[in-house]
Amino acid sequence: MRILTGLQPSGKLHIGNYFGGMQPAVQLQDQGEAFYFLADYHAMTSMSDAQTLRENIQNLAIDFLACGLDPQKATIFRQSDIPEVNELAWILSTVCPMGLLERCHAYKDKVAKGISANHALFAYPALMAADILLYDANLVPVGKDQKQHLEVTRDLAQKINEKFGEGTLTIPDAQIREDFAVVPGTDGQKMSKSYDNTIPLTGGKKAVRKTIMRVLTDSTPVEDPKPTEGSNVIALYKLFADESAVNQMIAEHEAGGLGYGHFKQQLFDAYWEYFSEVREKREELENNLDYVNSVIATGAERARTESTKVLDRVRKAVGLR
Amino acid sequence: MRILTGLQPSGKLHIGNYFGGMQPAVQLQDQGEAFYFLADYHAMTSMSDAQTLRENIQNLAIDFLACGLDPQKATIFRQSDIPEVNELAWILSTVCPMGLLERCHAYKDKVAKGISANHALFAYPALMAADILLYDANLVPVGKDQKQHLEVTRDLAQKINEKFGEGTLTIPDAQIREDFAVVPGTDGQKMSKSYDNTIPLTGGKKAVRKTIMRVLTDSTPVEDPKPTEGSNVIALYKLFADESAVNQMIAEHEAGGLGYGHFKQQLFDAYWEYFSEVREKREELENNLDYVNSVIATGAERARTESTKVLDRVRKAVGLR
Repeated sequence: MRILTGLQPSGKLHIGNYFGGMQPAVQLQDQGEAFYFLADYHAMTSMSDAQTLRENIQNLAIDFLACGLDPQKATIFRQSDIPEVNELAWILSTVCPMGLLERCHAYKDKVAKGISANHALFAYPALMAADILLYDANLVPVGKDQKQHLEVTRDLAQKINEKFGEGTLTIPDAQIREDFAVVPGTDGQKMSKSYDNTIPLTGGKKAVRKTIMRVLTDSTPVEDPKPTEGSNVIALYKLFADESAVNQMIAEHEAGGLGYGHFKQQLFDAYWEYFSEVREKREELENNLDYVNSVIATGAERARTESTKVLDRVRKAVGLR
Repeated sequence: MRILTGLQPSGKLHIGNYFGGMQPAVQLQDQGEAFYFLADYHAMTSMSDAQTLRENIQNLAIDFLACGLDPQKATIFRQSDIPEVNELAWILSTVCPMGLLERCHAYKDKVAKGISANHALFAYPALMAADILLYDANLVPVGKDQKQHLEVTRDLAQKINEKFGEGTLTIPDAQIREDFAVVPGTDGQKMSKSYDNTIPLTGGKKAVRKTIMRVLTDSTPVEDPKPTEGSNVIALYKLFADESAVNQMIAEHEAGGLGYGHFKQQLFDAYWEYFSEVREKREELENNLDYVNSVIATGAERARTESTKVLDRVRKAVGLR
């Protein structure tokens, strides 16, 4: 079973990215043949600074490895190292009704948010389909927001197979992760760069502590019992602490007598401890960029072995070769 | 000066294709460094049969050579032999406002004609822009119907240069061919496969004669003078006969006494003579497919030398490498 996931190099990772993307990816590397790619073509739909793109790509590769991806198990590669993905996207586009893309929520939402509508943003699901289909992926773990794009992928693969012969493309299954820990941001909304409410995955102790101290709470006086339902501090603490520690924090909320500053300090300590290994590995890797680059280069080679097979099959089927 | 033209392998060529595309291309090969490509990716927007696509590509290559393209002068290559063109199309798409593509007449017209709207048809101008920009083309001879697509190309190149640095892409000039002989079809409309009014460039003597005998005329009796304004027979004859022969046919129309059958026979004879060399070369080439394939292979190599240079420059500028 081949598992495929792409992550966008959109800047410094936050803990929402970690629990929503990195951690599940690391867990999956033991369950099949994992293909993980750094989605630089996709990042270009909303970024247009060459230097930032380069830095973000390198940072994401480092994060991938620091979070425990094992290049012996998983194939880690850069999307643009296999530019042939764009050719497959074109081939898929020839069977892709405009309506299929026009109905995609992600595009409609971005436009509604005022992100200027460029063609790449619109064509994104066709390229994403190519990303998946180019590697004969069987399983694609995605969040609910990407469910529709996976349906587009399956739909396009089926259309190609109908027109040009069964077996031309492998129909992937989506693994919709309903069980994802929803990571609240410092303001209680879903953690997201665009809400400016993120807690970074790694960063200086003082700066992160300051961020965590800003987590939104109510104004219950120190001596009073504090609500535990809907508490951002407790929700975040659950990500880092074991059950007994969480239960203790809940009990201390209910008992009263301790202020939010105390709980936030506990949260920060748990966070800091939780990511200590990631931080260490990250520092090591930052001082060993040659290794990081060699991992990506090896990944590209492995990815190319697969993409060449699939593309040869597709080109033959559609009459391009 | 580099001149670029693409021709779609959409089936057997007709004389409208010859005078509108082939002949100007052959003339231009002496005026600069000519790059001519067989546009198989584009053909896929309206065709989905692998065998037909393969045959059409080979036929178009043969036609190119039979019509006098000289592989020593012109680089003749197959679009899909340089699949990197799709990567450049993606990069261009990231700076391409949706409105720019939505306003393109060619797409709107095709949809209006009931051709089912697929995404490739919509994205066509972005791929066409990449076709041109990937080879640093300076001059692109196009018919009026492609003028808007050339403007899209210039627009996208300028946007890339503004965002990522002047000189990243070469801004091409359009050479709008207003002077193209408008080739009427057998029914007097513009000759076009979709009107089913074409006269083939090459074909069996009997079959082509039959087609030419069908050219639409009025019902003036044999003995009467015949109108020369708007005469399809004369318009077609002008393509093949010299001035004195044309003047004689006009005089004979005005004099009366000769029927349309007579004039159509003259038209056919002139047609047959005009393309005798093309027919001979075509037959030769059909029996020497190895040579045809070697021309295309050499063309791909030359094209790749250029595309690699341009793409390296672009990738560096946008941060992909």
